[in-house]
Amino acid sequence: MKQKTAAFLIIGNEILSGRTQDANLNYLAKKLTDKGITLREVRVVPDIETEIVEAVRILSGKYDYLFTSGGIGPTHDDITIDCMAKAFELPVVQSEDAYRILVEYYGGAENVTAARARMARVPEGASLIENQVSGAPGVVLNNIFIMAGVPRIMQAMVDNVLADLADGPKSISETIVFERAESQLAEPLAALQLAHPDVEMGSYPQYREGKYCVSVVIRGLDAEKVRAAVTACREI
Amino acid sequence: MKQKTAAFLIIGNEILSGRTQDANLNYLAKKLTDKGITLREVRVVPDIETEIVEAVRILSGKYDYLFTSGGIGPTHDDITIDCMAKAFELPVVQSEDAYRILVEYYGGAENVTAARARMARVPEGASLIENQVSGAPGVVLNNIFIMAGVPRIMQAMVDNVLADLADGPKSISETIVFERAESQLAEPLAALQLAHPDVEMGSYPQYREGKYCVSVVIRGLDAEKVRAAVTACREI
Repeated sequence: MKQKTAAFLIIGNEILSGRTQDANLNYLAKKLTDKGITLREVRVVPDIETEIVEAVRILSGKYDYLFTSGGIGPTHDDITIDCMAKAFELPVVQSEDAYRILVEYYGGAENVTAARARMARVPEGASLIENQVSGAPGVVLNNIFIMAGVPRIMQAMVDNVLADLADGPKSISETIVFERAESQLAEPLAALQLAHPDVEMGSYPQYREGKYCVSVVIRGLDAEKVRAAVTACREI
Repeated sequence: MKQKTAAFLIIGNEILSGRTQDANLNYLAKKLTDKGITLREVRVVPDIETEIVEAVRILSGKYDYLFTSGGIGPTHDDITIDCMAKAFELPVVQSEDAYRILVEYYGGAENVTAARARMARVPEGASLIENQVSGAPGVVLNNIFIMAGVPRIMQAMVDNVLADLADGPKSISETIVFERAESQLAEPLAALQLAHPDVEMGSYPQYREGKYCVSVVIRGLDAEKVRAAVTACREI
């Protein structure tokens, strides 16, 4: 059984300008790895319709799942829902379920202003992702999970989405740290990778307390093959 | 005068698996903003040749500059240089300048093992980016700046690259924080954006000390227009 694949599309000028440090990618990446789904690609695009539409079409076609964050709030720069509709040539409609959620969250229909009602707009045929943090739901369209950008909300939505997806085969990984220069490991490690083709060996140099060291990460779907490679790696 | 555009390609399985939290995007994004260059797109791809080659071709064609990080070390999983050569159908050659740098850094040719010499390989016609942290240089090919993934090294290379690029027109930005729900700001803010079309207004909800607040960021190339929009924004 193979792992399903996923992409993550981060929609937001503020990440690209450097004003905001992304906090969502690492959260999603870890959760997908734990779930047995491979995150294969990430893109960050600005709040520009043509860029979002193109990225959505490509990524949702190329991978089993597409997760997106950002651009689903009530303000003029929140254009994700309209872009999703455009990407699939769907009309945008008011979701009665989403509207009910907003009425409940804001304590009455009289408090659901036009701006707030914007957060009940979805591409036709979409379903919802619960948001226990701030009411306004995320949206599921085809294989796309459309989530908020605010980390607390995004992370709650990720958890809700993943609870409903089937677990894939988990990859197992082990890290072996060498206090050596990476260049000294290169040859034995290349030979080791050739001898253990069913595991993936990554070599990550780091700088710790004034010294270079290298973390070798061995990852694979078969626990025994990973173990065998790890045993062999400890001896290089 | 318009700002030049840039993309950033992060090459690395470890970011996609969640093992490593990216630290380079925010550094580069801020430095480009300060330099008057617009970061327009970011992608993260795995250490897979076809994926890297395709992303390099697309991003280097679409933007004025492409920055990449990761995959230029001495180990078998460092395939960035070969992918760059493949993307432009160039042979990979040994750079004599890079080799000299390695000989000096490692204290003699006898210490430049085959693995270390790999770090002197470049696509034909490329030039080098100084690496004052750990010797092995980065590479410049066409409009592409090929840098290391280790943050200390990557950041030094970014600084070296940007010192040689011309400054673009700087964007000016100001942030106004409202202790209101974003939905209450949506309508006046949309009107304000219409009235000030030459500045970009972004609305970023945050959760601080148990309360929602909103940062409105107003950004533009013309200081007076930004100032006028900021003044108007404080009154909404």
